[in-house]
Formats: sequence, C-alpha cells, structure tokens
Amino acid sequence: MNPAQHPHRLPRNLLLRLAYDGTDYSGWQIQPQRPTIQGTLAEAFARITGELVQICGSGRTDAGVHACEQAANVQLSAPIPCANLQQVLNDHLPGSIRVLSVEEVPLEFHARRDARSKTYRYRIYRGTVCPPWLCRYVYPFPYPLALEAMQAAAREFVGTRDFRSFASADDSTRDETRSTVRTLFSSVLEPTEEGLVYTVVGDGFLHHMVRNLVGTLLLLGRGGLPADSIPAILAARDRSAAGPTAPARGLHLVKVEYPSLGQSQPLARIG
Amino acid sequence: MNPAQHPHRLPRNLLLRLAYDGTDYSGWQIQPQRPTIQGTLAEAFARITGELVQICGSGRTDAGVHACEQAANVQLSAPIPCANLQQVLNDHLPGSIRVLSVEEVPLEFHARRDARSKTYRYRIYRGTVCPPWLCRYVYPFPYPLALEAMQAAAREFVGTRDFRSFASADDSTRDETRSTVRTLFSSVLEPTEEGLVYTVVGDGFLHHMVRNLVGTLLLLGRGGLPADSIPAILAARDRSAAGPTAPARGLHLVKVEYPSLGQSQPLARIG
Repeated sequence: MNPAQHPHRLPRNLLLRLAYDGTDYSGWQIQPQRPTIQGTLAEAFARITGELVQICGSGRTDAGVHACEQAANVQLSAPIPCANLQQVLNDHLPGSIRVLSVEEVPLEFHARRDARSKTYRYRIYRGTVCPPWLCRYVYPFPYPLALEAMQAAAREFVGTRDFRSFASADDSTRDETRSTVRTLFSSVLEPTEEGLVYTVVGDGFLHHMVRNLVGTLLLLGRGGLPADSIPAILAARDRSAAGPTAPARGLHLVKVEYPSLGQSQPLARIG
Repeated sequence: MNPAQHPHRLPRNLLLRLAYDGTDYSGWQIQPQRPTIQGTLAEAFARITGELVQICGSGRTDAGVHACEQAANVQLSAPIPCANLQQVLNDHLPGSIRVLSVEEVPLEFHARRDARSKTYRYRIYRGTVCPPWLCRYVYPFPYPLALEAMQAAAREFVGTRDFRSFASADDSTRDETRSTVRTLFSSVLEPTEEGLVYTVVGDGFLHHMVRNLVGTLLLLGRGGLPADSIPAILAARDRSAAGPTAPARGLHLVKVEYPSLGQSQPLARIG
C-alpha cells in the first residue's frame, strides 16, 4: 500500500484465488530480472492502482509448478469493487495467470498463517508418446510400475509424521529448531485415463515434499525400493533415504482451505 | 535426401503422423531464423541421419495453429527401422512436437496430393475466466450467442461450393485461374463442457478458411449478420462479405485421411 495515492482511505484486505501455468515462470516468489507469479501480479496492481502492494501467498510454488487454485491476500487502498478488480486484473495479466475471485476479508486475515489445509495433485502420463498439449502438465513415465505396492506405500504417509527424509536438503532442514513434522489427512494414488494421479491433502508441506513423495513412490514402483520400506525411510530422517525429486511440471496446487472463510467456486476441472 | 551419406541405398518414402502445439512456432512452413514445425523436424532428421530431407506436409498450418494429427512424407536413405526412427525423433524433438507413427509408403505417395479429406476442429471457451492450461488451445468468447442460428448456418457450408468469400485476400484469391471451390462433407457446431466446438471435414481448405468460417458464425451468433445470410455471403465471392478471421489458437488439425493407406491409431483425446 502506498498511502500517498489514497491518503484518507483505510487499507482493505483482499483474498485472491489464482490459477496459473507455472511453465514460463521462475516460481511464485518475486525475484529481480526473472518472471515470477508474485512479481507479475504486483506489476498488474501497480499499473491499475498505482499502489506498490505486498502480495502474501499461502506458500511458494517452485519454478514450473502449476496452480488450479492458489490463494493470496493483498492490502489495498484503492476503492475498486472486488468484481471490477478481478476483471481489470485479468485484462492486465497474461493468459497464463488468472484471477478466479477477489473477496474482502478481515484485516487480520493472512493467507499463509491462516491456511488450514492444502491439496496438491501430481499427474503422471503413462502412454508411450505424451501429447504436446499435456506435456507442460504431466510427468511422462512409460515404464512398468507395481501399482498396488505404490498405492499401499502412498497410504503409509497419512498421519502426523516427521517428513524430514522428504524435505529438500536446504536451510530449512539444516536448522534443527524448525519442525519437519507435518500432518497428511489423505494420500492417494489412483489410475486415470491419462495414467496416474497422486492426490495429497495436508496441513502443510516442506520444500519439495510432494515431489519427493512422488519420486519415492515411483522408485518403489520400479522395484528400486522394497515395498515395505516407507516406515524405515520416515524413521531415517535423512533425505538420502528417500527417492529422487520428481519433476516440477507434474505438480499442481489444487486448493487452499480457510475454514474461517466461505469457499470460492473453483474453476471447472477441464483437461 | 543426401546421396553422399548412403551412396548404395535406394531412398525410402516414409509417412509420419505428427502432433504439435503450434503456440511457439511461426507455423508449419520452414522459414529462415524462425522456429517452424517443418524446420524443427528437418533439424532432427539432420542430427539423427546426416541427411538433409525434404518434409512434405499434407498442408501448411499457420502460426499458432495446433495439430492432433498432421501427416507428412519424407524421402530418406538411412535404413533405420520405422519404430526406432519414431523413438529417436521423439528423443530429439521438443515436447511440443511428437511423432505419433512412422510407416513405409510407396515411393509415389505424396502427403499433400494424396490427401482425400481433412478434419479441423475449432474450440471456443464460453466461461468468464479461461483456465491457464486451456488458453493456448481455445478462443475465449464469453459473450451471448444465438446458438441455434449458428448451428443452422454451419450446416449451410456443407457441399461443393465456391468459398472465395472465406479465403484470405492473398495471392491465391487474386489469381483467378486458381479454383476456390471446395467440398465440405460435414460442418457441425456443438456445445461441449468447455463451450463450443466447430468440426469441419472437407476435401481441402483455402488459406484461413476455417478461421473465417468460425469468425462469420460468431458474428452471426452475436447478431452482427442476419441468420439467413450465408447463401448471400457465399454468392458474393468477396472476402469483405464474410466475418472476421477467428484467432489461430483455437484451431486444431485433427486428421488427414488417405483412403489408399491404412489408418494409424490417433492419440487418445485427452484434455
């Protein structure tokens, strides 16, 4: 918020629901000289209102990761009605980022702190030739897989557990004071028309966690890990015990839930 | 074909079925200093076999137009089996271009001359916010439309007619010796989950013809043309009598048929 533009206005707190194709962005978080989701949104706000807003996302998504419905809040002074703001933002944004809804929320609402659960989906294409119109959104993996063993392993992630073995070995895991315990409410691998989809719902996720869960399931499905190895991998609390990081392009942030707020209507799930 | 590489080999004639996302290409036809489908394929052949091949497509697609199944033939000397060639081409090509199949065809087969029918599809998105993962493949058109009038108008294109009013005003229509008569076997506008899809099957299409048919149907559906105006537009033989050219991104070449050859298995239609 830049109070110079609207000196007599109190700031409003707005919740934005967003969809994006992450392929051509260096992730959510604003970075100098690189296209990012947060930076592109901030530029659109600046052009429309003249305000230099802080956009607070529910969490960061990495380069190449997509969102069916990300959430973010913005403090804004300009008195533009929510529906108009949604429309004019979409007029200014590239087609790869869409604002699905804008709503007024209490001033104390915070998109990261108040998120109670997130749903991610990871899409795996199983055919031999991946259609060009899917290749940005799926990980092509045409090799044989032991599906039932993978499905059983996926179920073992459910519950409140220390997921340190599935967190990227960066600052967050080197800092022993930061908890790597998370609660997964659901963790399901299902066959679909295009291949496999892994859907996971949790109260929060460590950096690279979903991609590391998927990479581990694929390694297990290929026979590179024993079918009963998940408890030992969790107990190891060591990144090298788990499988590789699956590519970003298969990962989609599907939904962020705020029980204190009403739910928006998500985009119809097409394609 | 470069006979220097394989001096003792007779050339083979190969039919390729191809899928591509045309968004990032300046169309099918090879052009210096621009990414094209034909040029990208030719580079892949050169890297794999050392041969500078001529790739003969069933027809050109414009910049931004997609193909679910384009067809092209190539004369090649290298004795690589068809299945291996398909795989190694896909290993060398970007994910936005896929070789669906490679088969040996008679030396006299010619992908453009021998094509007996082509199917195009034009996808129109009718929701207010177009999902980022569809925006490369559909034309968003959220305004009210008189669907039944458009469907009736679409049916009037069927038959053997002079489509000069629907051809781009370029050299091909200025040259009065070139026929602008084409036969459409089917022309159907249907509602779908995402909006509308126009599917047209014909023995051939003039430059921009499908996009001009769609632009005319949309203008008619918006009330910008009388519902019964198609016969007069056809009779005018004048580009200015028809509606505008619909954007390239909604257009997909779906299939090219060669009755003399067996049909390949198309990619599953996902998304």
